[in-house]
Amino acid sequence: MRIDVLTLFPEMFTGVFGSSILGKARDKGIVSLNTVNFRDFSGNKHNTVDDMPYGGGGGMVLKAEPIFGAVEHLLKDESVEAISRQVENVDEDQVRGKKPRIILMCPQGAPFSQKIAQELSGESHLIFICGHYEGYDERIREHLVTDELSVGDYVLTGGELPAMVVIDAVARLLPGVLGNDQSAVTDSFSDGLLEYPHYTRPAEFRGWKVPDELLSGHHLNIGKWRRRQSLERTLQRRPELLDHAELSPEERKWLKSVRIEQEQEKHRK
Amino acid sequence: MRIDVLTLFPEMFTGVFGSSILGKARDKGIVSLNTVNFRDFSGNKHNTVDDMPYGGGGGMVLKAEPIFGAVEHLLKDESVEAISRQVENVDEDQVRGKKPRIILMCPQGAPFSQKIAQELSGESHLIFICGHYEGYDERIREHLVTDELSVGDYVLTGGELPAMVVIDAVARLLPGVLGNDQSAVTDSFSDGLLEYPHYTRPAEFRGWKVPDELLSGHHLNIGKWRRRQSLERTLQRRPELLDHAELSPEERKWLKSVRIEQEQEKHRK
Repeated sequence: MRIDVLTLFPEMFTGVFGSSILGKARDKGIVSLNTVNFRDFSGNKHNTVDDMPYGGGGGMVLKAEPIFGAVEHLLKDESVEAISRQVENVDEDQVRGKKPRIILMCPQGAPFSQKIAQELSGESHLIFICGHYEGYDERIREHLVTDELSVGDYVLTGGELPAMVVIDAVARLLPGVLGNDQSAVTDSFSDGLLEYPHYTRPAEFRGWKVPDELLSGHHLNIGKWRRRQSLERTLQRRPELLDHAELSPEERKWLKSVRIEQEQEKHRK
Repeated sequence: MRIDVLTLFPEMFTGVFGSSILGKARDKGIVSLNTVNFRDFSGNKHNTVDDMPYGGGGGMVLKAEPIFGAVEHLLKDESVEAISRQVENVDEDQVRGKKPRIILMCPQGAPFSQKIAQELSGESHLIFICGHYEGYDERIREHLVTDELSVGDYVLTGGELPAMVVIDAVARLLPGVLGNDQSAVTDSFSDGLLEYPHYTRPAEFRGWKVPDELLSGHHLNIGKWRRRQSLERTLQRRPELLDHAELSPEERKWLKSVRIEQEQEKHRK
């Protein structure tokens, strides 16, 4: 997979692209990670990339020209087509028409999810656009990008950290990136529940003991204990997740009884 | 504000802590940003920080000891108390009792929001714990941390990128970090709606024109156009946000009529 990032702060990516899983994926040749400073495509003498908004108001707006210029430069790059050809099981015609996903990171975008990460991991080329300032000239949205993504409802300084988040979530799904040990982690959201508590040695740390159930060696009981912990933790912290979780009929019954109890508790107060 | 980050990958933070808003906040002395490699506190010869989970299963679990050791080392640091004393309008007794917030980044945490960012920006000392592998020994949750945060329902390799997201969102709220121009951006979620479209020069780019309303110079009409665009975009992309948005009685009426229309449209199909 080829990943290009358009940013005014390429130096922000150095540490992240070089470390941990992304660094390994890069070293193994599974992902190529590149940054492009779109200031190089400003098309004007003073290298300005932003300007005042039409209609007034505070903040600056990223101009259309540098972003269009940088993306088009990438699309003309011969190596892009070469990378598309490497995708297996795709016939020539499909490859020729295969366009990269051009992803705008912005608060107005679709909420990023594990499902979107899965979908993007099937692509051969992703281009991320990271803005700063007030916003993007709307023509970038209307005529250039294929996707708009947001990582959450909070205000960040720019699109760089959100792009890193999406890139990490996508890259770790690519075959060969994670070892067998680590791939278990992928299961975190697979059944729609929060994870059960984990414990490792020592069995007693400062007087705090590992629950007896986990030390029993009785695998059926351990499985039951973990599942129950998962359910209770989800109910306590993120009850809305239970509406879409995969539950057995018994678990649904239990959940219903807990909820009735909670309602009664509320009325009693 | 003092921010410490416990991580096995301190090099991931170099670029992000040195650039853009965080770099400026650091240069101005508003934030001190430090990383601590908790492998230095493993307390064992082989410097291992993780071990197999009790009860079996894949993945590794971060041990309690290195995390407790690193946090306690930070709390013993004299400069921590000195920083607490710098907090204005707080009397001696309060300062002495003022403990840092110890924040575990994990998928089971409370969903991070702008409200939590606001709350954390009032603290004088934050400590972030970033894990990798399967999970944390539960005793870290039960007996050490004050908060657990998640930036979204997707699977990431570690807590480093989520910690950077939270640090960026918090640091930009500190007085003096943003210039006046940029602070307008803070308004993005303040009325609970997505932002209206922005345009800047040129008025025509490749045949695509800026909407006439924005070129009219009529500020009342521009205001109305923007508000309507905000409402329509939110309705189209994130209708659930409208339930908590600040709307005028006319806007509520309009929204109700649009929703009735949509329902009727659905029935017709």
